[in-house]
Amino acid sequence: MLSGDLAFVWADELLEGASDDPATMARARQVFTTLRTEVIAGQYLDLELGGDTGAVEDDALHVALLKSARYTVTRPLLLGASLAPESGGRRVVGVLRAYGDAVGLAFQLRDDILGLFGDPAVTGKSCLDDLREGKRTVLVLRALRLATPAGQALLERSLGDPDLDEAGADRCREVVASSGALASIETLLALRHARAVRAIDRLDEPARGALGQLAALAIDRQG
Amino acid sequence: MLSGDLAFVWADELLEGASDDPATMARARQVFTTLRTEVIAGQYLDLELGGDTGAVEDDALHVALLKSARYTVTRPLLLGASLAPESGGRRVVGVLRAYGDAVGLAFQLRDDILGLFGDPAVTGKSCLDDLREGKRTVLVLRALRLATPAGQALLERSLGDPDLDEAGADRCREVVASSGALASIETLLALRHARAVRAIDRLDEPARGALGQLAALAIDRQG
Repeated sequence: MLSGDLAFVWADELLEGASDDPATMARARQVFTTLRTEVIAGQYLDLELGGDTGAVEDDALHVALLKSARYTVTRPLLLGASLAPESGGRRVVGVLRAYGDAVGLAFQLRDDILGLFGDPAVTGKSCLDDLREGKRTVLVLRALRLATPAGQALLERSLGDPDLDEAGADRCREVVASSGALASIETLLALRHARAVRAIDRLDEPARGALGQLAALAIDRQG
Repeated sequence: MLSGDLAFVWADELLEGASDDPATMARARQVFTTLRTEVIAGQYLDLELGGDTGAVEDDALHVALLKSARYTVTRPLLLGASLAPESGGRRVVGVLRAYGDAVGLAFQLRDDILGLFGDPAVTGKSCLDDLREGKRTVLVLRALRLATPAGQALLERSLGDPDLDEAGADRCREVVASSGALASIETLLALRHARAVRAIDRLDEPARGALGQLAALAIDRQG
């Protein structure tokens, strides 16, 4: 906890040296404050989500937006933009916001899929962890909604079971796939990717190319 | 933990509104960063101190300086001074630093005494807590150094004993008083008080009067 607090202070100190211009720093600090507030709110909601058997997809999407999209993509981009000598004004901010939220959410959805269907040799983490922890990801919540009653029961029984084995996880994967949840999340992911690409369409190079590459790396990955 | 993190962010936000002048804010932020770093270091050292049977008075004084004196008195005064339109320059900073460290340390020493000898009806807390927690305060460490071997053994046995009762606490108090530790800490306290009063001697009114009153309130209290 104390190390975390100290890192908090150091982050403030580092930001302080980012620019000598007071107006620039005021903009940057405002973004940084929003970034921190959002990730704290996201973490709180994620804790609530973990134990909430009545959670719905919108809850998980909200957490993914705050904890993954905003914190990992959107706000860091806006922080960089706020520090640029020519910030590009409202148009660039709007573009980065639309791009960041779309890429960040798709990044999290890819993470949900890899957490269940990924190759542990590539992802570096077991495919059992998310299930054993009972993580109510968008993917899992959608499967719970779309599956047959028997499939739902199997998923509910398996989520959060610390003793779940590979055979049990295989049965969960089968439910998630046959319910149509996996395919529909892949579609959602592709839609977000397309939205992100569209958002940066009118940006100049090299920004457009770099952000296009970043989106592909975040979304079309195996691990 | 998340509430604490959020309060951290809010503190930053509040400070941001303290002045419109960039140079003033840069000064204030620097003090605020030091304040936070010191209290985190103090808290860490205090945790170490709690379980360290080889702790000596200097360790406890260092914790009291960082956690109590600097955090509660010195840095808040310097923070206020940094925000003042006329900061008064190095002379005022030096005065506030000397005053704050002296008053803050005396405040903590008074706290140590009240934690052991205070009237629970006035202090609002039991006189058993500090002993049961095994707090190695400056007062306790001095008593351990000055007491007879039998007194030392009794103190060591009682410190951190969760079942310590009023009779046992009375025996501890007896050791602390008869060892001379209590009287010598009262003397140290009076010396710090005198140093604080001397430090503000050349300040103008109403600052001198207000700080003199604050010192008396912090040091000569029953609860």
